[in-house]
Amino acid sequence: MTDTTQESHHTDNVQEHLKQVESLLHKHALVESVAHNQELPRQDRHALVGSLLHKQHLTELQRKLDGLHPADIAYILEALPIEQRLLVWDMVKSERDGEILIEVSDAVRESLIATMNREELRAAAEQLDTDEIADLAPDLPQNVMRDVFKSLSIEEREQLRAAMSYSEDSVGALMDFNMIQVREDVTLEVVSRYLRRFDELPDHTDQVFVVDRDDRFKGVLPINLIVVNEPEVVVGDLMLTDTIQLHPEEKADQAAQAFERYDLVSAPVVDEDGKLIGRVTVNVVLDFIRTESESDLLNQAGLREEEDIFASVWKSAQNRWTWLALNLCTAFFASRVIGEFEGTIEKFVALATLMPIVAGIAGNSANQTTTIIIRSLALGQITPGNARRLMAKELAISGLNGLVWGGIAGLFAYFLYHSVSLGVVMTSAMLLNLTVGAIVGMAIPLIMQRFGRDPAIGSSVMITAITDSGGFFIFLGLATIFLI
Amino acid sequence: MTDTTQESHHTDNVQEHLKQVESLLHKHALVESVAHNQELPRQDRHALVGSLLHKQHLTELQRKLDGLHPADIAYILEALPIEQRLLVWDMVKSERDGEILIEVSDAVRESLIATMNREELRAAAEQLDTDEIADLAPDLPQNVMRDVFKSLSIEEREQLRAAMSYSEDSVGALMDFNMIQVREDVTLEVVSRYLRRFDELPDHTDQVFVVDRDDRFKGVLPINLIVVNEPEVVVGDLMLTDTIQLHPEEKADQAAQAFERYDLVSAPVVDEDGKLIGRVTVNVVLDFIRTESESDLLNQAGLREEEDIFASVWKSAQNRWTWLALNLCTAFFASRVIGEFEGTIEKFVALATLMPIVAGIAGNSANQTTTIIIRSLALGQITPGNARRLMAKELAISGLNGLVWGGIAGLFAYFLYHSVSLGVVMTSAMLLNLTVGAIVGMAIPLIMQRFGRDPAIGSSVMITAITDSGGFFIFLGLATIFLI
Repeated sequence: MTDTTQESHHTDNVQEHLKQVESLLHKHALVESVAHNQELPRQDRHALVGSLLHKQHLTELQRKLDGLHPADIAYILEALPIEQRLLVWDMVKSERDGEILIEVSDAVRESLIATMNREELRAAAEQLDTDEIADLAPDLPQNVMRDVFKSLSIEEREQLRAAMSYSEDSVGALMDFNMIQVREDVTLEVVSRYLRRFDELPDHTDQVFVVDRDDRFKGVLPINLIVVNEPEVVVGDLMLTDTIQLHPEEKADQAAQAFERYDLVSAPVVDEDGKLIGRVTVNVVLDFIRTESESDLLNQAGLREEEDIFASVWKSAQNRWTWLALNLCTAFFASRVIGEFEGTIEKFVALATLMPIVAGIAGNSANQTTTIIIRSLALGQITPGNARRLMAKELAISGLNGLVWGGIAGLFAYFLYHSVSLGVVMTSAMLLNLTVGAIVGMAIPLIMQRFGRDPAIGSSVMITAITDSGGFFIFLGLATIFLI
Repeated sequence: MTDTTQESHHTDNVQEHLKQVESLLHKHALVESVAHNQELPRQDRHALVGSLLHKQHLTELQRKLDGLHPADIAYILEALPIEQRLLVWDMVKSERDGEILIEVSDAVRESLIATMNREELRAAAEQLDTDEIADLAPDLPQNVMRDVFKSLSIEEREQLRAAMSYSEDSVGALMDFNMIQVREDVTLEVVSRYLRRFDELPDHTDQVFVVDRDDRFKGVLPINLIVVNEPEVVVGDLMLTDTIQLHPEEKADQAAQAFERYDLVSAPVVDEDGKLIGRVTVNVVLDFIRTESESDLLNQAGLREEEDIFASVWKSAQNRWTWLALNLCTAFFASRVIGEFEGTIEKFVALATLMPIVAGIAGNSANQTTTIIIRSLALGQITPGNARRLMAKELAISGLNGLVWGGIAGLFAYFLYHSVSLGVVMTSAMLLNLTVGAIVGMAIPLIMQRFGRDPAIGSSVMITAITDSGGFFIFLGLATIFLI
């Protein structure tokens, strides 16, 4: 549903558009403040000038916005603080509302939808394809969805129901219904005539799909083959049958990997009866991959979801609290582990200065191991055949690290406190805790995967908890035995 | 250069292929071990049976490999331990070497190239397009590159030189030269006749490029428009001129964002004189985005580069050492900060148990701030106009977190050690250190960006160093003043 012929493409740089809009908003705001300043003399005159200028800036802004691609407007909306965002949103022509709502992030979409009434929302949704309405549905009030549903044709209702029935991370959620279907017994001439009846083909139509009378999928016919072959060739002789087929319940991630591996632009989605029910296109896959990789980065820092950078302090804080609460609990636990050794620390206070080193380095090393394992798991590269080898390798690396970095840390301790046994305790504790780190760094993601959970979420808290508490316990425990 | 009609597409699941290959290799290895077992009686007979079975498994493996898509073979090579990997690599038909080398990761590519001689490498490189040779070039020995260069046409040499001249993160590095060019004064009929002279169009040809006599870019003509319009229409009347143009020196990331935003399949690359010099296609952009997001995740854990999971312990350890060494230095520093307060800790050993909490929570919170900032920087959403608002917001969140989590930690300290002043010191230290975390969490990525460095690399070590040492200093410092 995107129009690729917008004026915006003249400048490739969307940041440029953002700056222009900001500057117009700024001028507008200045005029506003002059016009509303009650302390100025000859207030009426100022207000008049103000309102003229005001109108001029707004007209300019309106013209600028009308020339922008919906995706660029979405970008600008995301980068504006809330009151300016809503001012711009009010100025966007209402017939573009739907397209823009599809483009913005979930957090910003919420802030925009909150300002719209039932009628506006219905109108916005009705501009969209059924698969796009399905994407928007979770954010729309029920009564709006009921209105929208009523306005659809029977076929579209069926599509909307189907699109909404698949889970968010399945192929069904990426699917659209804009595929062109032909029969295998016609000639390219007939296909070409059929295609010419469209004003334009749906976006990303690199191939048409060949189906039989019962809509059963037979193969694909790339548009490029239509172009390079003579009109009298029959579709059945030219179509490709050995092509990838997606299934609506399949994991979206699997489909994304297929797109990457086989360089696809579109792929058919086929149900269990072999019927063609939709297609997936590369632009949706690109968005999916970007969103996934962003949520990986956000999850690693314990941010539950994407954050509207202009969300309220309260809302942002909530997004971050689960993580901090969890970390506080593990920190309390580690603190109690240290507490068990207060007697030892009292006798040898150097231990307090050295213990964070043991905990910290093992935590870093364990997180390196986990990162490697999670990545290999995501690529499906860990098999029963090679898991043991990997484990052995990670243990060997941790042993090597323990000798090298533990050795250096031991020397550090020795030179500071002139105690050989302290140095030996330090090195041994580092070696042991790095080994613990390697084991949990491998085991935790593997166990999470086994139980069907995403190993990228939450692994690092658990690992750090274990290398922290474990590090304190090992180091202070060894010290209690050998130094006191 | 990928053939999308391979047998492999029957099964969508590449893991299935991997399992089959592994099982064939396993059978092969069993037979090998029987055949070579010196202790067996009637050794000759066993060896004979062995070599027959041996051959049978290898033939089956060969047949399996021949049926696979190059990308699937690349995937399998990555998931196999080194000796099995090289066995499979030897069995791959040499005319597919080039395509497969392009598909594997850098680390695995190195291990494969190491086994090939000059002649094999030359042959592999010559199967590739010039833009692909450029991708391979850094891994090829100089004399091989000289051989390859000699075998190219003058035009191809020019292309290779151009492709190699752009930096790795520029549009030029993503560019290929497989674009079809037409003139604006011809009819679609003429274009169609021209296209029919190709056996097949280059991959991802969703549009042909319109140029003038001097190769200057005029516009694009989508294939879909050729299909839906009558043959007598003239190219100039139909072509789109308001289309996105990339420049070879532009950042690849900018181009990737344009592909995402405008849902492109291909885009022209134009030099400063307005001449069309190449194109970028969505499959390359997809690979780029995936690689970028992976290296973000790897960098966050301090892995310098992608690791071949079967690399030697020594090689893997080296990949991880810079990070561990850096962290060890900051840990030593933090340890010395604590060392300055040994007298205080001796008098009040509870401080040693509580200090990791102050350091840890602020580190977590600061990394959340940094993650948000890095993401907003990457999207270009931070402008001089909104930076101050963001700073205010992050400070407010850290204040709120300080009161909530600092308050809880203060209560924890109070109930454990029955000292009101210890509780107050704990809460104040948390509040202060969370504020320090918010400031450095914002400032460090912004400063790195200002100095043209990638804020995603290394920010977190610096931030953790500051929240650790800072946390110890603030907590123990306050304790020294108010508790002793």
